[in-house]
Amino acid sequence: MIIVMKPRAKQDSILRIKNIIESHGLDAHISTGKQVTIIGVVGDKSKLQDLNLEIYEDVEKIVAVTESYKLANKKFHPDPSVVTVGNVKIGGGNFVIFSGPCAVESKDQLLATAHAIKKAGAHILRGGAYKPRTSPYSFQGLEEEGLKFMKEARDETGLPVVCEVTSLNAIEAAIKYVDMLQIGARNMQNFYLLKEAGKTGLPVLLKRGLSATIDEWLNAAEYIIAEGNPNVVLCERGIRTFETATRNTLDISAIPVIKEKSHLPIIVDPSHATGVRAYVKPLAKGALATGADGLMIETHPNPSCALSDGPQSLTFEQFENLTNELKPIADLIDRKL
Amino acid sequence: MIIVMKPRAKQDSILRIKNIIESHGLDAHISTGKQVTIIGVVGDKSKLQDLNLEIYEDVEKIVAVTESYKLANKKFHPDPSVVTVGNVKIGGGNFVIFSGPCAVESKDQLLATAHAIKKAGAHILRGGAYKPRTSPYSFQGLEEEGLKFMKEARDETGLPVVCEVTSLNAIEAAIKYVDMLQIGARNMQNFYLLKEAGKTGLPVLLKRGLSATIDEWLNAAEYIIAEGNPNVVLCERGIRTFETATRNTLDISAIPVIKEKSHLPIIVDPSHATGVRAYVKPLAKGALATGADGLMIETHPNPSCALSDGPQSLTFEQFENLTNELKPIADLIDRKL
Amino acid sequence: MIIVMKPRAKQDSILRIKNIIESHGLDAHISTGKQVTIIGVVGDKSKLQDLNLEIYEDVEKIVAVTESYKLANKKFHPDPSVVTVGNVKIGGGNFVIFSGPCAVESKDQLLATAHAIKKAGAHILRGGAYKPRTSPYSFQGLEEEGLKFMKEARDETGLPVVCEVTSLNAIEAAIKYVDMLQIGARNMQNFYLLKEAGKTGLPVLLKRGLSATIDEWLNAAEYIIAEGNPNVVLCERGIRTFETATRNTLDISAIPVIKEKSHLPIIVDPSHATGVRAYVKPLAKGALATGADGLMIETHPNPSCALSDGPQSLTFEQFENLTNELKPIADLIDRKL
Amino acid sequence: MIIVMKPRAKQDSILRIKNIIESHGLDAHISTGKQVTIIGVVGDKSKLQDLNLEIYEDVEKIVAVTESYKLANKKFHPDPSVVTVGNVKIGGGNFVIFSGPCAVESKDQLLATAHAIKKAGAHILRGGAYKPRTSPYSFQGLEEEGLKFMKEARDETGLPVVCEVTSLNAIEAAIKYVDMLQIGARNMQNFYLLKEAGKTGLPVLLKRGLSATIDEWLNAAEYIIAEGNPNVVLCERGIRTFETATRNTLDISAIPVIKEKSHLPIIVDPSHATGVRAYVKPLAKGALATGADGLMIETHPNPSCALSDGPQSLTFEQFENLTNELKPIADLIDRKL
Repeated sequence: MIIVMKPRAKQDSILRIKNIIESHGLDAHISTGKQVTIIGVVGDKSKLQDLNLEIYEDVEKIVAVTESYKLANKKFHPDPSVVTVGNVKIGGGNFVIFSGPCAVESKDQLLATAHAIKKAGAHILRGGAYKPRTSPYSFQGLEEEGLKFMKEARDETGLPVVCEVTSLNAIEAAIKYVDMLQIGARNMQNFYLLKEAGKTGLPVLLKRGLSATIDEWLNAAEYIIAEGNPNVVLCERGIRTFETATRNTLDISAIPVIKEKSHLPIIVDPSHATGVRAYVKPLAKGALATGADGLMIETHPNPSCALSDGPQSLTFEQFENLTNELKPIADLIDRKL
Repeated sequence: MIIVMKPRAKQDSILRIKNIIESHGLDAHISTGKQVTIIGVVGDKSKLQDLNLEIYEDVEKIVAVTESYKLANKKFHPDPSVVTVGNVKIGGGNFVIFSGPCAVESKDQLLATAHAIKKAGAHILRGGAYKPRTSPYSFQGLEEEGLKFMKEARDETGLPVVCEVTSLNAIEAAIKYVDMLQIGARNMQNFYLLKEAGKTGLPVLLKRGLSATIDEWLNAAEYIIAEGNPNVVLCERGIRTFETATRNTLDISAIPVIKEKSHLPIIVDPSHATGVRAYVKPLAKGALATGADGLMIETHPNPSCALSDGPQSLTFEQFENLTNELKPIADLIDRKL
Repeated sequence: MIIVMKPRAKQDSILRIKNIIESHGLDAHISTGKQVTIIGVVGDKSKLQDLNLEIYEDVEKIVAVTESYKLANKKFHPDPSVVTVGNVKIGGGNFVIFSGPCAVESKDQLLATAHAIKKAGAHILRGGAYKPRTSPYSFQGLEEEGLKFMKEARDETGLPVVCEVTSLNAIEAAIKYVDMLQIGARNMQNFYLLKEAGKTGLPVLLKRGLSATIDEWLNAAEYIIAEGNPNVVLCERGIRTFETATRNTLDISAIPVIKEKSHLPIIVDPSHATGVRAYVKPLAKGALATGADGLMIETHPNPSCALSDGPQSLTFEQFENLTNELKPIADLIDRKL
Repeated sequence: MIIVMKPRAKQDSILRIKNIIESHGLDAHISTGKQVTIIGVVGDKSKLQDLNLEIYEDVEKIVAVTESYKLANKKFHPDPSVVTVGNVKIGGGNFVIFSGPCAVESKDQLLATAHAIKKAGAHILRGGAYKPRTSPYSFQGLEEEGLKFMKEARDETGLPVVCEVTSLNAIEAAIKYVDMLQIGARNMQNFYLLKEAGKTGLPVLLKRGLSATIDEWLNAAEYIIAEGNPNVVLCERGIRTFETATRNTLDISAIPVIKEKSHLPIIVDPSHATGVRAYVKPLAKGALATGADGLMIETHPNPSCALSDGPQSLTFEQFENLTNELKPIADLIDRKL
């Protein structure tokens, strides 16, 4: 941590800061410049949390030097993690495709989808049983009944299943039926939910919040891992910007940034990122070529009848066409697909 | 709802849309322009939810005409609401000041603050017992013990108290001790929590999400009201933008926008919006003059020792100085303070 | 400037950076922490511009300690500046109201407006003769003919006049007719234009760019002042965010931030910030109470016929009503209006 | 265009709007819904520009149905355009790589770069002679001398050259030396400059503004084409968001959006989008796989000595390595590289 003092800071102010630092068992290194004095703090960072040095006289600003997440940090865990979901390995050179409907609507819809995506090469079945919807008057999900259909789909196809959880109740129900929990964008900083998901020990798919920085995202992962659960997969699904041609703006740079800062696998969801079916295929190919560890693609037997997010869902034929185009690119860049 | 067709849309495509609309018991009005055809949909909006017309051939885009929130909508409830918290009325020409520490740290800290802000003219005591923190290694709150201190502060001073809740557990504890529940920015779209808060019947202070549109914010309020609980107060606390000189960007325009779209009271939190103590006073005065129904101001007996958000907290002296400067402005614009 | 090295940076890498710094005649102060080493650079900042130290091995990041603008910086010019436009003084406790139509459309329109706003208490007449419009098919302004009308309006009413300039040609024409040049939001980083405006010596009203940080804005002012022209007035007119209820988001926090960082006066334009007539009055009052040095308010004899931005223009009656409500607030906070 | 009336709009208000529309020679189609009335406007759109219907009583909002750009619009020009720069064709299945230094610093630097990038497979040499820099104290470019070096580099290598222009003066100089003009992000809405660039007839590389929507970007292209110059190539270079891990956020979705809305070629600049050398290669591959028509990649003989943007420049070896990895991906997706 570095404390930058104001120009012409009084010598007293500088000494006061130095004393506070040292009284916490840390070292203070003072550099006196022509215009400003800076104080470097050396020692155990945990003692610095909540020091509030910004508040003292003549302090201009505080600059953090190290990230606050540790367990999600590549600096302390240089090898890429591999997260196992059922019989599927995510990370470590694999390219894993999650697919399925935004919302589970019926057993028929889900089973038809599960078979179709398996045939087309998907590895994990997704489906929402607890739907966070902007309006209370929109379809909210089948809840536990939907989870049961998910389990049935897994039993029939062998595909592991993932479902979003939005409360402790939902977690308690989901652990009976699914292989992986999903924390959605709107709950990325629902820290209570993160801890409860962490405690289950199940792998967790952690979507990036609509306006979350990458640093906050990795801190949210840290909440899960700090519960003793290292099985976290990150999912970039678009951030909120001023652009309205797409529902969100897919932050594709998050792929190399995460690869540099963390050991966790990262997948990309072009369906939610754009909200437009025609943009899903080009962005899926782009995400693969940029180095993502997988994709999440929405599919539906009849997108025009979907109860949620129909306009962005692919038909089974479109999905199979997509996976066929992904394979040769994956080969080229050494991703197992 | 309006469906805009693509230029040169086939007649078949137009008729298909017309048929879908009419098969749902709605009317379709077709306007054929030189370049494009548009179809107006007339009838019960609830039947249109989840129709997914965007997906059909030759459809260019769908334009919503009416808002999805009803109970929070001024169109259906033209008179401003007044929300009662203990003996305090929010809305209807009153100007209500919430104050207190970001986090409850000890009984002494809280009681000292409660007495000081009461003396300075505050109406409601705020204090966090469940703290959502970006990093799992930051102070997370005293939880139920903190709630007990809140109740004690109320009993001593007569000030109603409000506390943030972050889970169903926290709600169940809080209803035993506090007068009003707060839903924080990170949980604004935690729909499960909104419903549970609604069910308590207690007044709810609903902070705007970091990247929530005003439309989403009013839909979040709708979740609470739809549970039979009309006692919602909105709190603007800054949105996330590219600007880094302040922690967030206070969207002061939200005041007149909310006044036009909704009947709910709106207060402003300049402490969290800026993160900088020196900016709190000017923005508090600006919010009052713009027409807010109140303020939330962080105070602390010793900001430099605060366990959370010290740099933005006012000392008691600064707070009293602020309320003194607010009074004559309130008089001028007919706000009872 | 501070260089933060990567954890486990090699000793060689640290020494290489130290050598580069010293070879430029600067001092390097090394602080060796448990996790990272930081290097403080002390000396003449101008030698550091363009050093590109980020690129060397084991360098994590570079942290700027001082702002790059000097002449616009309060640190080096602590007293607030007062800018004189004709017989009007901006800054120093005055509250100055600019008003007039978005676009000059005819002599009659402009003269009627000039007389009406003068009567209502405005100090400076604004009017656009060169209009930057998103589409080439929108009205682009009367150009030099519009400037002549501006001059006539000044001669008739005594109000100083300001007009936006969008090219060197426009500057060369404008200096013959107007008292102050305006650089619009879209040209805030048109550095060529800034320099040319600086060279004229005329006062310059510098609007903030749609996505400009406050730091970039003050650097743009620096371009003008560096040409020997200290007569710069800043104008906050809303920034671009995800919110769509208003055309832009008025960043009212910019007022106290500018007051802390710079000595230049700052005015606020609620008309362009919101794009909605009904929001202009509440935000005008808010800006005054927050500490702005003035306002820019669009007015038009017949807003529904305005060739540009009619929906945000006030009628003369609405404008007079606004200035009447501003006066008592100005008195309260010691602004001369 | 569609006019949405307020709920319970008076019949008079509706008729007033109808009359205004019809008095402009247009047709008004009224649809009367249960909650609101909407009015569809049919006829020549150019007559509607600047009607300001928002301002009339009982009008809720105006919804645009068609885009304001025509010449850049795919609807009116369905076949993709191919833009010729020297002997290089951009668009139509080609994949074109622009490369070179951010700023031209010396003849030696530029010639060394030109030879190296040609050898590595680049098609067009870029180099800045007029540099828009945030601070007036940063290196501003060699101006005409730099242009001469560009011409020399072309004469030696046969590579066509492109240079940013920032003023009419710069355009007048550049047309003597270069094959293509670049309009930079900060000047994307410098409409005067767009028109002047259009008039030269030279191909124009139009970078997207830092906070420009895709709609505004295509309107900016319209300014150039409306001068009779259809030779426009778009360049996505990152937009401004709240994320700070990268300098900007590369909006990769802009590729499929532009492909749907326009016939103009689009290239991607991952160097400026991220500001970080290590992220350039993954994003370059991603942009190609997503369907871009080309790339702009910064290279420098010695990035650590670059006078501008060194941290994002590739060495020649890194650049050659990149082009080698791009080729097989281009083959796969039918791009000629």
